[in-house]
Amino acid sequence: MTDREIVPWRVLSQKPALDASPWVRCWVETVELPTGKVYDDFYTIELPDYAIVFALTDSGDVVAERNYRHGARDVCLVLPAGIIDKGEEPLAAAKRELREETGYEASEWQPLGSYVVDGNRGCGRMYAFLARGARQAQAQELDEMEQIEVQLLPVRELSDMLFRGEIRTLATAAATGMALNVLSREAKLETPA
Amino acid sequence: MTDREIVPWRVLSQKPALDASPWVRCWVETVELPTGKVYDDFYTIELPDYAIVFALTDSGDVVAERNYRHGARDVCLVLPAGIIDKGEEPLAAAKRELREETGYEASEWQPLGSYVVDGNRGCGRMYAFLARGARQAQAQELDEMEQIEVQLLPVRELSDMLFRGEIRTLATAAATGMALNVLSREAKLETPA
Repeated sequence: MTDREIVPWRVLSQKPALDASPWVRCWVETVELPTGKVYDDFYTIELPDYAIVFALTDSGDVVAERNYRHGARDVCLVLPAGIIDKGEEPLAAAKRELREETGYEASEWQPLGSYVVDGNRGCGRMYAFLARGARQAQAQELDEMEQIEVQLLPVRELSDMLFRGEIRTLATAAATGMALNVLSREAKLETPA
Repeated sequence: MTDREIVPWRVLSQKPALDASPWVRCWVETVELPTGKVYDDFYTIELPDYAIVFALTDSGDVVAERNYRHGARDVCLVLPAGIIDKGEEPLAAAKRELREETGYEASEWQPLGSYVVDGNRGCGRMYAFLARGARQAQAQELDEMEQIEVQLLPVRELSDMLFRGEIRTLATAAATGMALNVLSREAKLETPA
């Protein structure tokens, strides 16, 4: 099989199935597969894009949060994250969410990529960032739905939690894995040959 | 703020908003926050749980796939993954999907945790696994919607792709980050003091 043979599906039509704008929109699509076969009930889901940040202080702590996550139906240890406003750049959203949710700012920002949340259905995109030089700059600015307790945790503790499967949400697990990959590669570069 | 003050929301009622079983179900919930404030339009989304596997051969290659992902609207490099059947254990689903999608089996399996896909809305759970001793045991068994090209890639190449933001789907990025974290911790243990 050559690379050329894997081709996108064709969307023949798209009808709204649920409109709960701006939070959720679902569509039912008629799609044609490369085999020629047509399916008339493929559901896709639009959710807002969001930014998430793995922010490190100069002493090597990660700026994390304890926060109730209704998707998990439980209080979870998560990284600062939030919806990207209309017209807002993902980096600006990451900086804003870090500041609003934790009161922290950071001096150095590195993008860790953007990711479609569900490979089948869509469900929005996650934009991940690694920030360094994080320091508390102000008080939290929480909206009325938010109740967030800031926790500073050593990087090693985040690695331990990821290793033990103690992180509960995919976004925080993914951004933590990406950031640890960056830090691990840097540590290897620093190791004398 | 003490730990005790962060408490779950109460779900006062739940009404169906979209029923496209068994693929997608959406609900609109009336929730009461710890502040006493009530919201009558919080949407949650049910999607099937799925398993994903980062499978390593004895020569240190990862069993990956090129595969069209409609959620990303593009051909992507992804790890073997698929929906967990009703009544099926996540590990059994991971083994089955690896075998069906790639023809590979593996001798050693390690769970990497389970994760709610969307911290706000739900969107199902991802169960991740690290498998070792992967070897080709049979031909692929693809269903009529699947077109999958197996690619063996060195672990380092997956780390490079994650570092450069070239992985496109959150599930594959997350499982790769988790597996690299495990392997990086093992490499450190092997490093002479």
